[in-house]
Amino acid sequence: MDDDVENGSLVSYQEKARTFPNLRSKPYNPLIFTRINGRVLAVLLLLALGAVLYVGAATSPIVVFVFSICIAAFIFSVYLTRWVLAKDEGPPEMSQISDAIRDGAEGFFRTQYGTISKMAVLLALVILSIYLFRSTTPQQESSGLGRSTTAFITVAAFLLGALCSGIAGYVGMWVSVRANVRVSSAARRSAREALQIAVRAGGLSAMVVVGMAVIGVAILYATFYVWLGVDSPGSMKVVDLPLLLVGYGFGASFVALFAQLGGGIFTKAADVGADLVGKVEQGIPEDDPRNPAVIADLVGDNVGDCAARGADLFESIAAEIISAMILGGTMAQHCKIEDPSGFILFPLVVHSFDLVVSSIGILSIRGTRELGSKLPVEDPMAILQKGYSVTIVLAVIAFGVSTRWLLYTEQAPSAWLNFALCGLVGIITAYAFVWITKYYTDYKHEPVRTLALSSATGHGTNIIAGVSLGLESTALPVLVISLAIISAYWLGQTSGLMDETGSPTGGLFGTAVATMGMLSTAAYVLTMDMFGPIADNAGGIVEMAQQPESVREITDVLDAVGNTTKATTKGFAIGSAALASFLLFSAYMDEVAAFSHLPFKQVDIAIPEVFIGGLLGSMLIFVFSAWACAAVGRTAQEVVNEVRRQFIERPGIMEYKEKPDYGRCVSIVASASLKEMIKPGALAILSPIIIGFLFKMLGQFTGQPLLGAKVVASLLMFATVSGILMALFLNTAGGAWDNAKKFIETGALGGKGSDCHKAAVTGDTVGDPFKDTAGPSLHVLIKMLATITLVMAPIFL
Amino acid sequence: MDDDVENGSLVSYQEKARTFPNLRSKPYNPLIFTRINGRVLAVLLLLALGAVLYVGAATSPIVVFVFSICIAAFIFSVYLTRWVLAKDEGPPEMSQISDAIRDGAEGFFRTQYGTISKMAVLLALVILSIYLFRSTTPQQESSGLGRSTTAFITVAAFLLGALCSGIAGYVGMWVSVRANVRVSSAARRSAREALQIAVRAGGLSAMVVVGMAVIGVAILYATFYVWLGVDSPGSMKVVDLPLLLVGYGFGASFVALFAQLGGGIFTKAADVGADLVGKVEQGIPEDDPRNPAVIADLVGDNVGDCAARGADLFESIAAEIISAMILGGTMAQHCKIEDPSGFILFPLVVHSFDLVVSSIGILSIRGTRELGSKLPVEDPMAILQKGYSVTIVLAVIAFGVSTRWLLYTEQAPSAWLNFALCGLVGIITAYAFVWITKYYTDYKHEPVRTLALSSATGHGTNIIAGVSLGLESTALPVLVISLAIISAYWLGQTSGLMDETGSPTGGLFGTAVATMGMLSTAAYVLTMDMFGPIADNAGGIVEMAQQPESVREITDVLDAVGNTTKATTKGFAIGSAALASFLLFSAYMDEVAAFSHLPFKQVDIAIPEVFIGGLLGSMLIFVFSAWACAAVGRTAQEVVNEVRRQFIERPGIMEYKEKPDYGRCVSIVASASLKEMIKPGALAILSPIIIGFLFKMLGQFTGQPLLGAKVVASLLMFATVSGILMALFLNTAGGAWDNAKKFIETGALGGKGSDCHKAAVTGDTVGDPFKDTAGPSLHVLIKMLATITLVMAPIFL
Repeated sequence: MDDDVENGSLVSYQEKARTFPNLRSKPYNPLIFTRINGRVLAVLLLLALGAVLYVGAATSPIVVFVFSICIAAFIFSVYLTRWVLAKDEGPPEMSQISDAIRDGAEGFFRTQYGTISKMAVLLALVILSIYLFRSTTPQQESSGLGRSTTAFITVAAFLLGALCSGIAGYVGMWVSVRANVRVSSAARRSAREALQIAVRAGGLSAMVVVGMAVIGVAILYATFYVWLGVDSPGSMKVVDLPLLLVGYGFGASFVALFAQLGGGIFTKAADVGADLVGKVEQGIPEDDPRNPAVIADLVGDNVGDCAARGADLFESIAAEIISAMILGGTMAQHCKIEDPSGFILFPLVVHSFDLVVSSIGILSIRGTRELGSKLPVEDPMAILQKGYSVTIVLAVIAFGVSTRWLLYTEQAPSAWLNFALCGLVGIITAYAFVWITKYYTDYKHEPVRTLALSSATGHGTNIIAGVSLGLESTALPVLVISLAIISAYWLGQTSGLMDETGSPTGGLFGTAVATMGMLSTAAYVLTMDMFGPIADNAGGIVEMAQQPESVREITDVLDAVGNTTKATTKGFAIGSAALASFLLFSAYMDEVAAFSHLPFKQVDIAIPEVFIGGLLGSMLIFVFSAWACAAVGRTAQEVVNEVRRQFIERPGIMEYKEKPDYGRCVSIVASASLKEMIKPGALAILSPIIIGFLFKMLGQFTGQPLLGAKVVASLLMFATVSGILMALFLNTAGGAWDNAKKFIETGALGGKGSDCHKAAVTGDTVGDPFKDTAGPSLHVLIKMLATITLVMAPIFL
Repeated sequence: MDDDVENGSLVSYQEKARTFPNLRSKPYNPLIFTRINGRVLAVLLLLALGAVLYVGAATSPIVVFVFSICIAAFIFSVYLTRWVLAKDEGPPEMSQISDAIRDGAEGFFRTQYGTISKMAVLLALVILSIYLFRSTTPQQESSGLGRSTTAFITVAAFLLGALCSGIAGYVGMWVSVRANVRVSSAARRSAREALQIAVRAGGLSAMVVVGMAVIGVAILYATFYVWLGVDSPGSMKVVDLPLLLVGYGFGASFVALFAQLGGGIFTKAADVGADLVGKVEQGIPEDDPRNPAVIADLVGDNVGDCAARGADLFESIAAEIISAMILGGTMAQHCKIEDPSGFILFPLVVHSFDLVVSSIGILSIRGTRELGSKLPVEDPMAILQKGYSVTIVLAVIAFGVSTRWLLYTEQAPSAWLNFALCGLVGIITAYAFVWITKYYTDYKHEPVRTLALSSATGHGTNIIAGVSLGLESTALPVLVISLAIISAYWLGQTSGLMDETGSPTGGLFGTAVATMGMLSTAAYVLTMDMFGPIADNAGGIVEMAQQPESVREITDVLDAVGNTTKATTKGFAIGSAALASFLLFSAYMDEVAAFSHLPFKQVDIAIPEVFIGGLLGSMLIFVFSAWACAAVGRTAQEVVNEVRRQFIERPGIMEYKEKPDYGRCVSIVASASLKEMIKPGALAILSPIIIGFLFKMLGQFTGQPLLGAKVVASLLMFATVSGILMALFLNTAGGAWDNAKKFIETGALGGKGSDCHKAAVTGDTVGDPFKDTAGPSLHVLIKMLATITLVMAPIFL
């Protein structure tokens, strides 16, 4: 291979990269996203935290505990950052590629978040005006919660949620575009070191994402507590405080939705486009430097997987904390528990422990360098699993400690034990989800092997088998979730907590605790997830820099492990989304009842309008998935045409004699995905608002009070159910197709280049938008719907 | 082309055909399915009808009217039979092929219905034992409705429904295997004559199917009325009578489910298998006599499309009539209407008029032969549409007459007008569904053209675009159904009918009337539907008999029209299924309340168990679709391997020098589809029973009365919603892929043989099990679930 030509092509890329027309010509450049120095960031954070620690001290010792753990987690992430950045960037050909990827990713991120922040500001104004015109009770007014106060609180929470979500996404991407090349470089020395760098980089994002979700809610809680003089005579009660935080969850999910949509479309359009021409038509390998779309594909991994997943998990945790706080507060109030703050702050403590145990899990993965061997002695998957086991064992202990500390009450002395068991149910559920996803997507098991076999009879049978596999794979997770909800609910009901009328009342809170149990190792799971795209990118850099076979082998192994962890964490994400939505749904009913002063205990689907709400909710999921997939298909076609054009116009590319125009592909994908993310996003946000408003009108006309709120509730429930099933289908089918192709590439059924392999590549192509665009967007959509109905409830009433 | 060789191949087929190992070795041979002579059938029917007319006279003049119309319809269908059978069967090469198809179809039908009837008898015993051990009220016992009476009535109704459904399926197939060759033969003379034969043959099945659904319910009603001495002092009231008929609906849907599953798997496995090797690998045209699976494919059209669709529509009409009768009775009772029989018998009258107006529509298509031209002056689609317009106009008038005649009551003098408008809503909904389906599946419109364009970038983008198109196409039908339910409900509520407490009560009945309006042209729609497979088969026979190009052109045009009508009637079927399920759901709640003596007015999805019921219901739809598609995929792979084997072992086939073994393919597909239909069918039948029973137990354990019944209700609602959406997705995506391929075959985007065409063929292959196996099975499943919960309700209480 001719080094000059290769370097030449990179110089060419850099020239073009500086002129991405759609990325660089925009005049705006949000301040927060300009160069952030690690040390300045740390100092700023410490200063800010010092200030809020003072507020926290005025609130509750539990809040101080949460603050301290979060600060420790941030310090730990600064340590990890320094550790990762201290690693070398390898030879110039690697760092040049890495620069190009970083440039593309940061350019896209800036434009994308510019658009998102504009929309967020617009939405904030809408929320403000809605809340300024909503009706309030005299009681609310007297407790200092007048119209304007509620309005500003909700909007402030929304904006803070959106901002934090943006930072979470940025950190995810910032880390991964820096870690990828360091992993590539380390792979030249030792597999174990490469693994360790990828894990620590992933861990660093995970710490920041989880820590920020926790501290954000804690800061809002403490600030409002002090500002509104909660629990002092005449002002609001602490149990009503969590309802004011829902704006934070909505802000987070709003940003996460567009981050996932835009990033998901970008990454898969580039991937599909690159594969369709490169692999299928020209027969060149993946990540080959001759493919004009290869840099776009590598950029996509960072903006699609790292940034988007960071925002997704951030939002999951935030939404779950807030809904659990609301339910805890409501229950404590019903049971007349003297100091309800334990029940309210419990979720914050659980996630603080999550930070601690996950840190230990991450540190347990050590980089001992083997003498004489470049390949690790152990399978990398086994190493990650061992770390996960460490984390889970510690999490179970920590969970038990937290329940005993915060949920012990003299009214029901054994209640904390029941809730600890609920947490165990959640942890087992998480484990079951990971196992089921693995069973359906790993080629060691029956389903993917059958799928691979069906490729032998052609493209058509491969697709039919994959679709069937995906549809079938919904069964076990649904059964697990059903069992989890029922058992956690009944553990809660039998906890001994009674309401005023003497009936058991802990059921819903039991479900909430199970959800927290499920998410109690979230930081470690996110680490494993972030590991995937970093390893994938490292592999791409190694391939493009034409490194020797032995280096590629190492990154290939890491990449394969990353694929598995990515698939399994999707199962985890959808499971927790299902549980969290069920909680948010209860919170929504509480909220509606509180503001309408009407009992709202039932959503009766035997009423025609309510049934129709459900029908529309399920339809929303189908149409959203359609638009997300179609966006990828359309953008990929643009990429295909561009790549084909370049191959025709520059016939020297294939002989390494001409330089492909990487920049053009990046800019095509970037502008197309920004355009394409708007339609499904707007659908998701506007549908519940419009439907709720229309049915409110219909209800007024036909004399049915609360009709709008009921229809929206039904919409939410049906959308959640359909969304869970559809996301499971899309994720699993996509993962299975991917691995069926990989299985054939190991030499089975004719191996690479056979007709069977071609059919499997078609399946993989179809699976790409399923598993990396529509599927993960649905996770976010489900929770976004739950939070938007909470915040927008005044419209339906 | 060498005639000897071709005849030789057919002789070979016949030798083999006589020895289908899996079809002929079974010892049993149900009596009813042995040779039925048209004249004997007619005489038998007349005798039987004479007997029941006597019973009818003792019931109500309305029943006599219904009987008379049905008898007239049967006489009309005898006339159509004689007319069709009088047409010539063409040259021997055609009738030989037709004999082979008939032989395969009847053999499969016999085995399939043998299996189904065994299962039906087993289920009848189960129902009998359940009802013998259920609890009854003293009131029921005193009115002559003791345990054993109810048990025998329900079982008798179930068996009669199953039997009638079987006959409906048999008639559909019987006609189509005889009409196909006559259409082929007529195509040699005139397109118009061929069209007329296909329409009349379809009309003949439609008359029998609809007539039998109506007369079956009417006979049961009249018999029970006389036997139980209804409305005489001390016995049951007429308004409670319709609840005894639900067994009939369940019997019909039970048989329809297995008929559709078995037939659907047969037809698409043969089709996919034949195409994958024939078209894709060997490059020979469809229906080429060299393809060993071609006879299996043609047999499949008859057992999959004709027999199954007959059973499907039979069941739709039966279920809709019974649920509307139940709702009519309940409403009449609440409103204390003096003579409720008008409200109860209204659906029977609507469908009697359906028979009359559809007959006129069928006869309006005349066979005027053009001089000098073989091609019709008019487009065949336009001719069918004109007949449809005639039918619709007459149906609107007839509907108005029926409402004025039967629904006029002095309590609310203008109520009949409101209900007539409800009927109009239904008719408009049916029309809108047909239009929407056409928009998404016809290549004259945007969506299919975009899909075709996406084939230009490969197999993967074609599949992604098709999936998106299908998912997106759910939006408009859902909006239409929502509007229809709301407007019909409110027309009913404002009809002026009041219950004892003075609140308006006609809403649900309004929805029921809209459903009847939608189905008020069912016989004509079924005619258009049956037209499709007959034309398809005729085309196959023409192709296999190597007829000149001009004849093929005629059958090709008819085939294309048939494809469109098949797709649009699926939209019609799913729309009516959606409405009918909503009615059956209300009937279920009435039934549960009546038998449990507890109020059952709400299905509150905020209760965790009820929510889980919904989750499980939606999951059922996903898994059922998965298993139906997977069955086709697996069976198709067997066909592919067999066809490949034959091509390798007999290399002379491609040069017409050796005879393919058609019989082996038929027997492989037949035995595989019988085996494969059991798993999804059992899932559909057992899930609601098991889930209902388990949650009943849980409810008893946790002190929640009616929990089983509520969970099943929620399961039913969520399954209905998901089922409608999934069926719309599968049908539309399948139809669109099919027509995108056809569009490219017209020469667009490179035409036949181009890479684009190959990608489109992959889409078509994937679409086959979607649109002809899983999709239509879901229509039946939705209604089967509704009827099974009605009949099995004693288990959940």
